[in-house]
Amino acid sequence: VRELRNIKLVIEYDGTNYSGWQRQNNALTVQECIENAIYSITKERVDTIGCSRTDAGVHAREFVLNFKINSSIEEKKIKNALNAFLPDDIIVTQAYVVDDDFHARYHCKGKMYSYTVYTRREGTALFRNYSYTFKKKLDLDKMIRASKCFIGTHDFSSFRNLGSSAKTAERTITDFRIEQNGDMIKFYIAADGFLYNMVRIIVGTLIDIGIGRREENYINYLMEIKDRSKAGKSVPPQGLCLEEVFY
Amino acid sequence: VRELRNIKLVIEYDGTNYSGWQRQNNALTVQECIENAIYSITKERVDTIGCSRTDAGVHAREFVLNFKINSSIEEKKIKNALNAFLPDDIIVTQAYVVDDDFHARYHCKGKMYSYTVYTRREGTALFRNYSYTFKKKLDLDKMIRASKCFIGTHDFSSFRNLGSSAKTAERTITDFRIEQNGDMIKFYIAADGFLYNMVRIIVGTLIDIGIGRREENYINYLMEIKDRSKAGKSVPPQGLCLEEVFY
Repeated sequence: VRELRNIKLVIEYDGTNYSGWQRQNNALTVQECIENAIYSITKERVDTIGCSRTDAGVHAREFVLNFKINSSIEEKKIKNALNAFLPDDIIVTQAYVVDDDFHARYHCKGKMYSYTVYTRREGTALFRNYSYTFKKKLDLDKMIRASKCFIGTHDFSSFRNLGSSAKTAERTITDFRIEQNGDMIKFYIAADGFLYNMVRIIVGTLIDIGIGRREENYINYLMEIKDRSKAGKSVPPQGLCLEEVFY
Repeated sequence: VRELRNIKLVIEYDGTNYSGWQRQNNALTVQECIENAIYSITKERVDTIGCSRTDAGVHAREFVLNFKINSSIEEKKIKNALNAFLPDDIIVTQAYVVDDDFHARYHCKGKMYSYTVYTRREGTALFRNYSYTFKKKLDLDKMIRASKCFIGTHDFSSFRNLGSSAKTAERTITDFRIEQNGDMIKFYIAADGFLYNMVRIIVGTLIDIGIGRREENYINYLMEIKDRSKAGKSVPPQGLCLEEVFY
């Protein structure tokens, strides 16, 4: 009797044409494409475990998942075999046999997301699917100073939307960088975990500070008051990209 | 009697869904979209003059064109009016009334193109429409040294494909930079003018040097021999982007 093998995949995807990671009945998702490709090479219907759920339109430069198969396919052939069946906006970059107990979600120790804001009034043709166009002038220095308030362990109740089952709102942000390159502003946020829409609400709130609608110390107030309705709006999904997953 | 006004536009476009700049009978082009948008706001059918022809799939971060209109539309309203009628992969970033004799092609003093090569074996999902995946290892130092041979005034007969009506093959390359960022290699080439497919053949030839198929001094040999068949292949269009146009 052959033992089930636990396979870990690292994938990259362009989320533009997908309704997020998680399988749904009436919409195409990345998980469905991955599971169909696994079926094509193994004839096994597996349940993949993703490191997180990503929303429709969100991208991933590095997304990790695992699944168990009976198939005797050689480890070193898995990557290319899957890529042969995947559409060109989803790519397997690594495929390994891992310990039986490896779990892509439970064992995840942290993640880094990026969020891209394009500040040119006219928007952008080339980056339209990978950024959010914000047409007003932003005070970058103010935003950078305010972003420091997020670093460390805090209650992020003000920065979560309904829709997650997380029991506690306490998370630790380990790194927060904001970089400007011409009309493009990129936010990089690393944490041990993220609440639902947390990055998008954090960026929306920093934008409120960047246009002068809120003071720099407003972040601390939001941490204390724990009231989602007082934070900024959730900026759109296409600017968001899962950059790295830590184990 | 109102005088015709000469309008200069600067546009950005994602070339993925277009058969290049130049109007064609049976294919959608950027020029057709621009001229349709001009018709929508002026009810005038104009002939636009582009700074260059770009091939199908080629992008432009900055492309310049001009055209003459009778319409009394205010100068400052032209940009937003056109953007309202353009698809979201073509954007007007500047629109001005210019001197009557301004000609986007004849008055162009130079251009800068970029070409993006992605070197990861598995390719890229996120940059698939904006790069060429080359799966073999490239010796970047060799390519950078060889690229220096292009700088200056040379006969580029070895680096042109049939299809242009240029009378002479002499061009002056004013700047040539190669930058690496992870798996991505970007070539930036500025010149007073480019022959048909010149950038793509130059990059293809440097790749031959980067994999050791040709020696570094092969560029000088190609300049002398003036034989297209001895140069590298023309790499695919989607890696090419017109970055800047100089007047």
